[in-house]
Amino acid sequence: MSTKIRLGIVGYGNLGRGVQAAIAQNPDTELVGVFTRREPSAVRPLPANVPVHRLDGVDAFADRIDVLVLCGGSKSDLPEQGPALAARFNTVDSFDTHARIPQYFEAVDAAARSAGKISIVAVGWDPGLFSLARLYGESVLADGATYTFWGRGLSQGHSDAIRRVPGVRAGVQYTVPTPEAIERVRRGENPALSTREKHTRECWVVLDENADARAVEQAICTMPDYFADYDTTVHFVDEATLRREHSAMPHGGFVIRTGTTGERTSQVLEFSLKLDSNPEFTASVLVAYARAAARLSRLGETGARTVFDVAPALLSPKSAATLRTELL
Amino acid sequence: MSTKIRLGIVGYGNLGRGVQAAIAQNPDTELVGVFTRREPSAVRPLPANVPVHRLDGVDAFADRIDVLVLCGGSKSDLPEQGPALAARFNTVDSFDTHARIPQYFEAVDAAARSAGKISIVAVGWDPGLFSLARLYGESVLADGATYTFWGRGLSQGHSDAIRRVPGVRAGVQYTVPTPEAIERVRRGENPALSTREKHTRECWVVLDENADARAVEQAICTMPDYFADYDTTVHFVDEATLRREHSAMPHGGFVIRTGTTGERTSQVLEFSLKLDSNPEFTASVLVAYARAAARLSRLGETGARTVFDVAPALLSPKSAATLRTELL
Repeated sequence: MSTKIRLGIVGYGNLGRGVQAAIAQNPDTELVGVFTRREPSAVRPLPANVPVHRLDGVDAFADRIDVLVLCGGSKSDLPEQGPALAARFNTVDSFDTHARIPQYFEAVDAAARSAGKISIVAVGWDPGLFSLARLYGESVLADGATYTFWGRGLSQGHSDAIRRVPGVRAGVQYTVPTPEAIERVRRGENPALSTREKHTRECWVVLDENADARAVEQAICTMPDYFADYDTTVHFVDEATLRREHSAMPHGGFVIRTGTTGERTSQVLEFSLKLDSNPEFTASVLVAYARAAARLSRLGETGARTVFDVAPALLSPKSAATLRTELL
Repeated sequence: MSTKIRLGIVGYGNLGRGVQAAIAQNPDTELVGVFTRREPSAVRPLPANVPVHRLDGVDAFADRIDVLVLCGGSKSDLPEQGPALAARFNTVDSFDTHARIPQYFEAVDAAARSAGKISIVAVGWDPGLFSLARLYGESVLADGATYTFWGRGLSQGHSDAIRRVPGVRAGVQYTVPTPEAIERVRRGENPALSTREKHTRECWVVLDENADARAVEQAICTMPDYFADYDTTVHFVDEATLRREHSAMPHGGFVIRTGTTGERTSQVLEFSLKLDSNPEFTASVLVAYARAAARLSRLGETGARTVFDVAPALLSPKSAATLRTELL
């Protein structure tokens, strides 16, 4: 009998492929299989030596899987799959629609609790490690202010938005934090920053033949919610350039807590990420939390958890004594 | 009956005064009293409205204190006080002699466990928040390297060392991380860095009358363990300048985890602190963990813990639901 943590992947897009790669980097975990709503033979590129199964047959694997890593999207996949699968498996997911986390948490919690399973939801870097930085920051500096800056990074939602503009054949959008704003926060100025002052937006767009560049630029820059409140620049490139220079998915950002102790003594905490691949990093975080989920389940715990509820030691393959010796 | 977390402070030096200030910033905590080995009337400056008691009478407060915050030194105070007080009270401390943490942990764990108390040891920023950054970093990036840089900050141990040099009347020492080394790490070069390459040391020294400046400089720079392995600069100043410009206790530093995911994709995490007062910040972290200790004790947990064992949510005065809504 294997003593490894046996993981299943649900959904095989960028995130699912990242989880497969992360499992390969963590020798105490193993991949039992990929589960997909697609025809298994249609899953390309096929993971080497990894069985691909239909998701609707996943129940047959209940005894062979310790934790399912849910790699679907937050918009339509997870709201349905999360609670449904939490009723049959331990799960981890990267649900990231911030405003809907409370209701998602409740739905998964109810399902997992009745089933005696554990689910860790909203895992990744934001929500996830950035949330932790915000929590540690405000807990250890009670009087202060917390700032989050995102980027420089590719935003999937904003890229989708520009691709819906008539005349746009392809395009990507980068969210760029404003260096001056970050510096003001780091200096402890505690500034009130408008949306426009915190981030700028950069678009790289391939036009349809005969499209009017000025009209496209105008349509993007004035788009409500997505661009109107920001300083946005639009660059037009050809398709080969876009593919060559803008097909990676970098991201990252900064969480900064500035506060005071004693008689106005300034104290600053900063956590930052510089990620060359957003989905691969999110996947790597998911696998660490899948390890924690397996352990919590063995301890008999049930219900939904977030990164806030998980003791850090549970994320590491090392023993508590080794952690104290090597890392404390 | 008070629903606040009732804290006692053991030892009233810089750290103890910092804890008193931190308690005032956290409305869900209250200070029951300061406990000292000195004559209580000799404790100056006297904390406003804070009763000062003899430490040897602390047992009489067993029913009135939820957690004792131990503010003694790691060299001689805590090795004795930690286990002794853990046998009668819940405690938190900032024991920071890295090499002796395992044996200290075991001693406190045995005492706390038999007494049905909880003790969180080695709390602060290093060990403490930096330890957490190292743990989260290596858990979510399994293939990589972790670097810790300290400073720019005042090192108490090195300041003590220069003050023992004949001809030195007073002095302080700053540990300074090497910017080039930090940049190489951030770039993901994964460099092998010697002690000399990571940090430099800056000394500010007041000479005794008639002391030989060259001899003092030579004695400092060649001192084994403390300075011989570093590039050290010695500045001579008068006593008024030292008092005016070098009486603060700033510190801080950087924990950087660089790693790869997938096919050599680079990912970088960085956690940094810029502290204008090292003891006030450490004190502020201690109070957050005192909150966690009180909660763990109420849950019936016993024995020693470190920051690795404490779920982040336990540090915050906010409810789990509020944390999910506001910070996740």
